[in-house]
Amino acid sequence: MARTAGSHSQTTGPRVHDAALRLFAQHGFAAVSMRQIAAEVGVQAGALYNYTPDKQSLLFDLMRGHMDALLGERAARGGRGSPLARLEEFTRFHIRFHLARPDAVFVSYMELRNLSPENFAAIEGLRRSYENELEGILRDGVAAGLFAMQDTKIATLAVIAMLTGVTTWYRPAGRLSVDEVETVYWDMVRKTVAA
Amino acid sequence: MARTAGSHSQTTGPRVHDAALRLFAQHGFAAVSMRQIAAEVGVQAGALYNYTPDKQSLLFDLMRGHMDALLGERAARGGRGSPLARLEEFTRFHIRFHLARPDAVFVSYMELRNLSPENFAAIEGLRRSYENELEGILRDGVAAGLFAMQDTKIATLAVIAMLTGVTTWYRPAGRLSVDEVETVYWDMVRKTVAA
Repeated sequence: MARTAGSHSQTTGPRVHDAALRLFAQHGFAAVSMRQIAAEVGVQAGALYNYTPDKQSLLFDLMRGHMDALLGERAARGGRGSPLARLEEFTRFHIRFHLARPDAVFVSYMELRNLSPENFAAIEGLRRSYENELEGILRDGVAAGLFAMQDTKIATLAVIAMLTGVTTWYRPAGRLSVDEVETVYWDMVRKTVAA
Repeated sequence: MARTAGSHSQTTGPRVHDAALRLFAQHGFAAVSMRQIAAEVGVQAGALYNYTPDKQSLLFDLMRGHMDALLGERAARGGRGSPLARLEEFTRFHIRFHLARPDAVFVSYMELRNLSPENFAAIEGLRRSYENELEGILRDGVAAGLFAMQDTKIATLAVIAMLTGVTTWYRPAGRLSVDEVETVYWDMVRKTVAA
């Protein structure tokens, strides 16, 4: 479809974010210049500063956007059913959400070291919120006698690491569909925390 | 102890590797110049080329050195006992080995994208060897009726991702010792693959 809607300024913002995400994922934040991002978008370097004050803000916006999307989807779901049903929903959601955004996942994990201290604290707070939902499910399951684990905080981080690891090997053209991958991981998560 | 042994050329090689690893971990491979590495070591930029032909070779040497150390330790251990005993030994070893080398682990995972295709293939081959040991333990456990899982290859990658995740949160000054962390993870791994 021909691009007819939206003024230049309405469409350039998302294109700046897309270009920055792609370049950061490919080369790393520190190796990418504002000039390269401008060239990728097809605007003058000076014009980029209409959309973002600097590269740090761009990185922070990308990471915060990723976490906002994650937490927004969680707010719209979850919270209903038994701890086992909630854990299954969380597991399948985590795999699906992350497999759909490989560049954002990669940049969000890799580039934490390049955030300013305040920006790092803000992203850490959002990650903590996401982890807290899973830890709440695990605690409820332990209280109900359905789950057992030595440490709910470590179990939370272990399950998230196990699930996020799928992004390092999954290929859409491979032998398994996303649905099948979800089922294989759900079987493992269920056992990991079983009473 | 005062540094008395070793000529200049015998000691500079390891210092080049240490400096490169530290700088790559902190800033990312693409953002670090040979000039910066030379400055960190305290030699002229030109002198660095006595130790490495280029930055790509330096990255590859670091990653191969990490995998050689890993596989060397595995060759000296493992392989004895029941699948359950071997899985416990592997789990505890993986955590201990990786917690002792946070910079090498970080660079080895983050900078795969910056390896040349031949170097990437070589590192992938070494990683495959390591994964194959764990997959062999899981297969033996399944054959013995001790373990059960839908897919031994995915279970291998899931267990490794879960265990390596410990490097993202563990702090030596925290509430748990490495021994205690190993025990918490072993409890989860054991259950993840249980029949």
